[in-house]
Amino acid sequence: MDYDYPELDPLPSKIEPEVIPPCDPTADDRLYHICITVISLVVMLILAVLARRMKVGDRQKGLPGLLSPVNFLDHTQHKGLAVAVFGVLLCKLWGLLISPNPLPFTTDTANKRENWVILGVFFYPALYYPLLACGTLHNKVGYVLGSLLSWTHFGVLVWQIIDCPKTPVIHKHYSLFSSLPQIACLAFLSFQYPLLLFKGLKGTEKNNATEDLSSSYYRDYMGLLLISAVVPSLQTARLGVNEDVANLLAGFRIMLSPDKHEVVRIVVYYMWCVEVCYISAMTLSGLVNLAMLMRSMVLHRSNLKGLYRGDSYNVYNCQRNIRASRPALVCWMGYTSFTAAHICIGMIIQTIVFFLCLLIAVFLVIIPVLHRQNLILFQVLWSMWPFWLMLLLVVLIQHVTARFCFIKKTGGTRDLDNRGNLFLLTYLMFPVNVLIGAILGIWRMIITALFNIVHMGRMDISLLNRNVEAFDPAYRCYAHYLKIEVSQSHPVMKAFCGMLLQSVGQDTKAGQRSRDAEEGIQLVQQDKKQNKVSTAKRARRHWQLLYTLVNNPSLVGTRKHFQRQTTDSFLNGSLNRSTREESKKEATTKEAEAAASN
Amino acid sequence: MDYDYPELDPLPSKIEPEVIPPCDPTADDRLYHICITVISLVVMLILAVLARRMKVGDRQKGLPGLLSPVNFLDHTQHKGLAVAVFGVLLCKLWGLLISPNPLPFTTDTANKRENWVILGVFFYPALYYPLLACGTLHNKVGYVLGSLLSWTHFGVLVWQIIDCPKTPVIHKHYSLFSSLPQIACLAFLSFQYPLLLFKGLKGTEKNNATEDLSSSYYRDYMGLLLISAVVPSLQTARLGVNEDVANLLAGFRIMLSPDKHEVVRIVVYYMWCVEVCYISAMTLSGLVNLAMLMRSMVLHRSNLKGLYRGDSYNVYNCQRNIRASRPALVCWMGYTSFTAAHICIGMIIQTIVFFLCLLIAVFLVIIPVLHRQNLILFQVLWSMWPFWLMLLLVVLIQHVTARFCFIKKTGGTRDLDNRGNLFLLTYLMFPVNVLIGAILGIWRMIITALFNIVHMGRMDISLLNRNVEAFDPAYRCYAHYLKIEVSQSHPVMKAFCGMLLQSVGQDTKAGQRSRDAEEGIQLVQQDKKQNKVSTAKRARRHWQLLYTLVNNPSLVGTRKHFQRQTTDSFLNGSLNRSTREESKKEATTKEAEAAASN
Repeated sequence: MDYDYPELDPLPSKIEPEVIPPCDPTADDRLYHICITVISLVVMLILAVLARRMKVGDRQKGLPGLLSPVNFLDHTQHKGLAVAVFGVLLCKLWGLLISPNPLPFTTDTANKRENWVILGVFFYPALYYPLLACGTLHNKVGYVLGSLLSWTHFGVLVWQIIDCPKTPVIHKHYSLFSSLPQIACLAFLSFQYPLLLFKGLKGTEKNNATEDLSSSYYRDYMGLLLISAVVPSLQTARLGVNEDVANLLAGFRIMLSPDKHEVVRIVVYYMWCVEVCYISAMTLSGLVNLAMLMRSMVLHRSNLKGLYRGDSYNVYNCQRNIRASRPALVCWMGYTSFTAAHICIGMIIQTIVFFLCLLIAVFLVIIPVLHRQNLILFQVLWSMWPFWLMLLLVVLIQHVTARFCFIKKTGGTRDLDNRGNLFLLTYLMFPVNVLIGAILGIWRMIITALFNIVHMGRMDISLLNRNVEAFDPAYRCYAHYLKIEVSQSHPVMKAFCGMLLQSVGQDTKAGQRSRDAEEGIQLVQQDKKQNKVSTAKRARRHWQLLYTLVNNPSLVGTRKHFQRQTTDSFLNGSLNRSTREESKKEATTKEAEAAASN
Repeated sequence: MDYDYPELDPLPSKIEPEVIPPCDPTADDRLYHICITVISLVVMLILAVLARRMKVGDRQKGLPGLLSPVNFLDHTQHKGLAVAVFGVLLCKLWGLLISPNPLPFTTDTANKRENWVILGVFFYPALYYPLLACGTLHNKVGYVLGSLLSWTHFGVLVWQIIDCPKTPVIHKHYSLFSSLPQIACLAFLSFQYPLLLFKGLKGTEKNNATEDLSSSYYRDYMGLLLISAVVPSLQTARLGVNEDVANLLAGFRIMLSPDKHEVVRIVVYYMWCVEVCYISAMTLSGLVNLAMLMRSMVLHRSNLKGLYRGDSYNVYNCQRNIRASRPALVCWMGYTSFTAAHICIGMIIQTIVFFLCLLIAVFLVIIPVLHRQNLILFQVLWSMWPFWLMLLLVVLIQHVTARFCFIKKTGGTRDLDNRGNLFLLTYLMFPVNVLIGAILGIWRMIITALFNIVHMGRMDISLLNRNVEAFDPAYRCYAHYLKIEVSQSHPVMKAFCGMLLQSVGQDTKAGQRSRDAEEGIQLVQQDKKQNKVSTAKRARRHWQLLYTLVNNPSLVGTRKHFQRQTTDSFLNGSLNRSTREESKKEATTKEAEAAASN
């Protein structure tokens, strides 16, 4: 072994294992959890009392509003708070699964750990719920409480980290790295609540309702998916943990070091290579997932648009019924969590695969090329050059003869020529083509595996063949999720609700405006009961409704009763249009009818 | 280790390693190859002389006919000979890659082995070509020569095997097993040629031409794909080789045997389990590939039918131009070989994966259950029961609440209800759903990998997502192959050629009948030049042609010139039909026109 390895200055040949004593932070974790639980309870009680008092004045809000954290179906609402809380929860879940002591209330570590994990899974959402609930009331007191609560969480966490920056578990900076995303989320909350409070003091809160409804139509989707912000935090978490493992690997070198200085340097160099490979693989997988997420959002938007237009065939590759159903609702409930889990698993697998590939590349290609020694791979490939040359020549011959001998162009069409020679060549090339086929097969395997690994974190495309797409559980879930999204947030429906609200405002002169489209729908029904509009107005509305339905067939399924005769009369009335257009529209309506009647 | 293992009688605890001396068969391989090469050359010369003499009498056959082994595009032709020769070639290729001495002419084994392999790849097709060529002349002398040649090949191979049934390479029965498919193919040839000779003597050969053309229309596809018969032989070959490896594994036990009788028995028992797993995995992979091949043929038939009808969108998932082109022709030439290679690779991978899965199943599930010891897997799963119960309960709760609380049925439509509680539940279940998502992700990975491994040998489906199907090299090749198949073997075209041939026979009273559809096409052009048909007949033919083209739009692209005005007049003439039907047909023709003009 006479390699000429570069001297790596930052890596000494021998490192003393740093002894980190177990550290008890001044802010005891157990005491802190008990205190914060009590504080959260008190905050919830205050909010409940406040909500009851507000209920008298305002019809819509109140206790039910307090228990409904965020309207997940309204994409125009500002979701920063929810995203931050979900991020904190995800970090807590990670800690719950990793740490030997899942909840700080218990002292016996190994015994009945699973039960504590299960408890923790339900405890943490409840613990952080007040952070969300403070924002639901749209009230100054709520914002003040939210600010205080988030400051407490943030402060205690930062205090603990500063107190004990190094831990004996996994890596000395493990605790710091794994807390970073959590701190980021809490900092965002601590900043957001005072901002909301400030806005509330300035009085911009008042005309939120109209703003939301108008923006819902014009801005369409501002943050489309909830998860878009969870992932960067997730990435940071994984980045932290993985880097530690890489460092840990590098730490092994103290056990491997023999007495000879040269060997130590080689081992250190190899270890450094492995470490670099690991960090590169991790970064690569992070970037891949970011890119995938962006593509995912683009695809989601085009899927939504397509389904609004009613062409479910392009999106689902088959005719589907877009309506709320039990499995669709269950999938909708779990979609955000499933996506987070899939991205996590995808990143782990990607990191492992990329790491292995990079290791192979580095140790079989790059290092041998750099040092011009042990060129095993190149030697093997080079010794087979007649074989590669033969394959290349055969492929070339087939292409050239196919182009110039066997295809005849006569009068704009192409046909086969010299069939006898074509068959002879096919026969003679059979064994060579088997070898080419084997190479193609290996290439197919690699490309398929790579594609599936890269797209592991995306739920919106199926990893299976187009005929068996539904067997992919993740894609199945996404397809169901899409149904709920489309059926509950059609922009035309929202615009219609907005128009109705405005007309109600004009008719009754009472400025009762509700917050979101759901309440708009309720208002539609109230409106129908009143029946105070004139006949001409009603007729005009009928026409508008029918026009809307014909142009947005996916809305037909959501109507209460099926007014076939009205649709028919509409179509008969527009006979002065061209027949072509009519038949097309008829077909579209029939399609929608069929979809709705299923 | 106090297992109570069953005593396996056929496996003694200690086996003497059988010493097999290197065996030189009486029929020396080198001498045999030189002789058979010379004989083949002589046979080819005789055939060539014969062909030249026949050319004087018969216009169609002759030297070019001799050099065109089989019409691979005519699916109605009897392809037994070609399949058998391809089978022999595949076995030879396998032997070429495995054996240390690829060609028997050379004595130095290791030196320049690759070059001999490359030579062999081209030598064997040429060596076995006379076996095919003897059948192309449809002549008694050819059949006699073919019978003699195939008997020689068959006899020498059987003689060598009987002489040296055991070889020192890999396994004692390796040579026997690997020669079995070869023997089967040669036996088929030895049987087929005398049969053809017998038929030829009886005079049934004369009216083959008409039979083929009529059968081409009525029987459609009898053996659809060439490979359907290659694969069983391939399977046998792999079966032979793999069983040997399994036996070889079992042979290791003589090295592992310590002095204690009990341990020996346990090791023997484990080895026996491994062997059983291996053979099961191999059988399973064979069965899977057979099933896949059958599905493949069904799909191919439906694809062909679909493309004949002109709906290329369903087959390719996009609009494609069905016409002969350079890449399409190259893919067509290699398709059979690629399929054989893919099935080979697929079987190897399937065997490995199934073997590993079976090993895990046997050693972690079946043996522990049978002996009620070392139930590690069950203990791990059992210790996690609260976790599984929690997941199950959460899923159940979500389904039940979705069904009964959150979905409201009013007047035939379904809508969401209790949105506040829905959002609250969604928030609270977030961490648990992440865990469920992780399980789903793992399940997705398993199912995707399994699907791709099982379908590895199928070239007619893409293993990738529907939007990137074309990146799968095997599917791309199949798509091109399909183009050639469809453009060259449209049943309507064949039927039309048949009709034309019949009418020519009636008009000129000369019974010149050519063999296949290709020549039929040439006759069509000759027919047009003659112009002896009456005007009424021509008009009727024009109408028939147009009717055919409208109903088979995929044929339009193969026409020489584009007769747009005629098509339009046809459509204008049929205005008395319903508008609906017309517009549909118009659309279809437009589509076909667009496809053809691209």
